Amino acid sequence: MTSTPDRLETLRAGITAFVAERDWDQFHNPKNLAMSMAIEAAEVMEHFQWLTPDQAAALPAATRDEVALECADVLLYLLRLSDKLGIDLAAAAEKKLVLNAQKYPVEKARGRMTKYDKL
Amino acid sequence: MTSTPDRLETLRAGITAFVAERDWDQFHNPKNLAMSMAIEAAEVMEHFQWLTPDQAAALPAATRDEVALECADVLLYLLRLSDKLGIDLAAAAEKKLVLNAQKYPVEKARGRMTKYDKL
Amino acid sequence: MTSTPDRLETLRAGITAFVAERDWDQFHNPKNLAMSMAIEAAEVMEHFQWLTPDQAAALPAATRDEVALECADVLLYLLRLSDKLGIDLAAAAEKKLVLNAQKYPVEKARGRMTKYDKL
Amino acid sequence: MTSTPDRLETLRAGITAFVAERDWDQFHNPKNLAMSMAIEAAEVMEHFQWLTPDQAAALPAATRDEVALECADVLLYLLRLSDKLGIDLAAAAEKKLVLNAQKYPVEKARGRMTKYDKL
Repeated sequence: MTSTPDRLETLRAGITAFVAERDWDQFHNPKNLAMSMAIEAAEVMEHFQWLTPDQAAALPAATRDEVALECADVLLYLLRLSDKLGIDLAAAAEKKLVLNAQKYPVEKARGRMTKYDKL
Repeated sequence: MTSTPDRLETLRAGITAFVAERDWDQFHNPKNLAMSMAIEAAEVMEHFQWLTPDQAAALPAATRDEVALECADVLLYLLRLSDKLGIDLAAAAEKKLVLNAQKYPVEKARGRMTKYDKL
Repeated sequence: MTSTPDRLETLRAGITAFVAERDWDQFHNPKNLAMSMAIEAAEVMEHFQWLTPDQAAALPAATRDEVALECADVLLYLLRLSDKLGIDLAAAAEKKLVLNAQKYPVEKARGRMTKYDKL
Repeated sequence: MTSTPDRLETLRAGITAFVAERDWDQFHNPKNLAMSMAIEAAEVMEHFQWLTPDQAAALPAATRDEVALECADVLLYLLRLSDKLGIDLAAAAEKKLVLNAQKYPVEKARGRMTKYDKL
């Protein structure tokens, strides 16, 4: 009986191999990777820069495909950064969801984007 | 026979439920989510702002745990944004890895951080 | 006859003296300063993250004062970065306005946020 | 006797006229302008992404000229954002320098990049 490989783990291994084949690990200092992730996040944002909320919620398919590939860049750098720092990214996100549920109790936070320290 | 649920899919469902319980979907326009992701990426970066590359590669455990939770924020917003846009994030990242392998052939790119259009 | 000192030049000199007094120049590598500027720009953005366009255009005075100080941070890092790179910031901006006027001729660009290479 | 016009004020008036001629003010909501500024700050950062600190401190002249024009973009959006919010940018920066001097007393802050609340 085989189990399906986890997709995030497959991607992590895939980007690691990609980097190793090109001897790019020398450039992948966590500081550089954090910058790279922020740059890619800005490129995602660029697609929404001048759109109204309504336009942003109804992207043409071609734009959505471009945004998908920019989102992919963010994920790949995020996996790379986590890997270099010895962070289990999915575990960190699971933990953060639990912490957020404590910081934003349903009854206090419902329908309000108030920061937790002002709730 | 049950299969292990995919961790990325579990997270996507978790953040969706978290948002629904708080009636926050009304704020989760893709434009806002793209901004939020960029803001969280900057918060990751803030931890590395004044570090030398050597210091960045040897974070104290407490700092690494803080960075892990900031990385989690980036991932959660990225999942949320992808979900709102109907993007399969893992599939996009798999596709991007293939495209990158074409843009950066091993023999040309080895050991060089030159942008693909100048290789 | 004395002339009024230029405000941007006064600020540039002010931040340079501030840094020298604290012996912080050692940390002010252009790479670090570029990161710092991006981090401060994200902090400006954070104030607008969940606002509708109408809310963003009508900030309460207290929020506006907070945004003003975040904008100040962006300017101070921008002056510092320019200084370290030997860039005359005001001259660069004057030049950029001329270049933009060529890239976006009035008759083609009026009322449209289309990128210049698609006009 | 004429006084030299202040360069920052000249730039502010220049970008305002540029925008008015193209009827772009309709797009210049402060939220959009804050995003634009963050995007341009990321473009500045992109030039330093893979450089060592030594390389960043010794940019080739051609790269420096490119960085100068990206810095110009940050300044122009910053002036535009300030203008739309009714912020006197230079006054805000002057005020911030005073506040920073209080937050980071010379004797405590010398040679250390510790955040003020941990000094």
